[in-house]
Amino acid sequence: MQLAVSSDMLVEGRHFLSTVAPSRLGHKALAVNLSDLAACGARPVAFTLALALPQADAVWLEQFAKGLFSLADAQGCELVGGDTTRGPLNICITVFGEVPTGQALLRGGARAGDDLWVSGTVGDARLALEVFRGTLGVSAEVFDKARVRMELPTPRLALGMALRGLATSAIDISDGLLGDLGHVLRASGVGASVDVSVAAGLLATPVHAVSPAVTARRLEFALAGGDDYELLFTAPAQQRAAVLATAVKTQTPLTRIGHIEAGSGVRLVDAQGHLVSAAFASFDHFKT
Amino acid sequence: MQLAVSSDMLVEGRHFLSTVAPSRLGHKALAVNLSDLAACGARPVAFTLALALPQADAVWLEQFAKGLFSLADAQGCELVGGDTTRGPLNICITVFGEVPTGQALLRGGARAGDDLWVSGTVGDARLALEVFRGTLGVSAEVFDKARVRMELPTPRLALGMALRGLATSAIDISDGLLGDLGHVLRASGVGASVDVSVAAGLLATPVHAVSPAVTARRLEFALAGGDDYELLFTAPAQQRAAVLATAVKTQTPLTRIGHIEAGSGVRLVDAQGHLVSAAFASFDHFKT
Repeated sequence: MQLAVSSDMLVEGRHFLSTVAPSRLGHKALAVNLSDLAACGARPVAFTLALALPQADAVWLEQFAKGLFSLADAQGCELVGGDTTRGPLNICITVFGEVPTGQALLRGGARAGDDLWVSGTVGDARLALEVFRGTLGVSAEVFDKARVRMELPTPRLALGMALRGLATSAIDISDGLLGDLGHVLRASGVGASVDVSVAAGLLATPVHAVSPAVTARRLEFALAGGDDYELLFTAPAQQRAAVLATAVKTQTPLTRIGHIEAGSGVRLVDAQGHLVSAAFASFDHFKT
Repeated sequence: MQLAVSSDMLVEGRHFLSTVAPSRLGHKALAVNLSDLAACGARPVAFTLALALPQADAVWLEQFAKGLFSLADAQGCELVGGDTTRGPLNICITVFGEVPTGQALLRGGARAGDDLWVSGTVGDARLALEVFRGTLGVSAEVFDKARVRMELPTPRLALGMALRGLATSAIDISDGLLGDLGHVLRASGVGASVDVSVAAGLLATPVHAVSPAVTARRLEFALAGGDDYELLFTAPAQQRAAVLATAVKTQTPLTRIGHIEAGSGVRLVDAQGHLVSAAFASFDHFKT
């Protein structure tokens, strides 16, 4: 087996808002690290936790631990050590996973002709953030659901492991779909086409539940939202049935949003494969 | 081989002063983690670095990296990943080491009759801290040397590896000699006698170079100073020659400061083995 290691540091105001419930923060702090293991097809084994707190707050710690260990126990990932200290709130988790030698999913294996897939739903975390920021208004029901996506992300561990030997590359979406796709494209030396008509449908929030102002930003949230922790991966087109079988086996929705092609960068296309430029000029800054 | 993992989080004002040179901080952030590997007899392999910085400061980062990689390269310990983010200055390093299965030095193996050993010099880091705090005055020469002990600790990796199969327990001194000894005693279910006449001589700072006010606090600094990153370990008395041979082999000064005995807690004794109580009543709070 090979050891897979990931370390993420979460800072208040940057990775989470002060309004988040401590139990959700405990979940998220581990989830974002587990998501990195998922992206390389590793099985979680253990983690360390280093925590700086402004003051010892027993209630906060109890709730934080509740969220943290609920996810850790569900994934069989054991806390094996760490550090606590007084200081500005800071959470640093390092996770350890194992993957059979040579089977880790990497970023550099995407090939022209491969399908481009994304798991679950994407963009709702950003929608919730924009409501927090006051740039959008939605109903309480829509907000609560989107907020769960932001505060309680689901690391796609079962999917990652099922994709060993099937996906040619994989990454988790933490900085936005197009941004993370760019990492894969650069590492693989290829380009990609992404179908915006499919991408705009990646949000869990239904169109009918929100105002036209929100609807107008769906594609932006899906492609450049961030904080999604879904898997973005490539697989040969002839493996399409096998990929869909992993969706069933791991009970993870999968959407084919485009394909890999020769060249570099991302081409945004419509359902007919035509380049969308005029209407989406504002998306230029997403391009890699 | 078994994997040894340690994670420490360093916060400004608590683990280092704002006056520390960034290159020394880079050294220390890794050194305190390597010291934990040394204490279990592990060989360092790799580390991750998570770093929160108030702002991107190229000069600071260059100097920090210089100190960090100088130590990492010297110990063959490779940076394999990590995270950087904006936030109050916080450094979280997780180190990975390897040790032959079953040979890790642990805290629970001290037995009555074992010798109690400490490596190098202890207490000077605290002396430097007290000068920073303004509670003591020393010459610039004494201060500079003590400050190096505080800011550039030496992880005792060669010694730790050489003690495999020889030491019955080991710990690194980060919180003060008596405090860390207490961890060993509790884990091993034993007590210890410590010779204060020997302990008072553990500082590198010579008695003749400082004022009587400083001399009066030597024992306090040695026993409860903290930030020393020396190894405290136990070994059977019949292995005394073998222990001293590791001192030569690894070029690490070793001092026998007492022995393990049945019972619990620490007895401070003089050179004749008599309990010192009246004169050292102020040391009661060190007892475990």
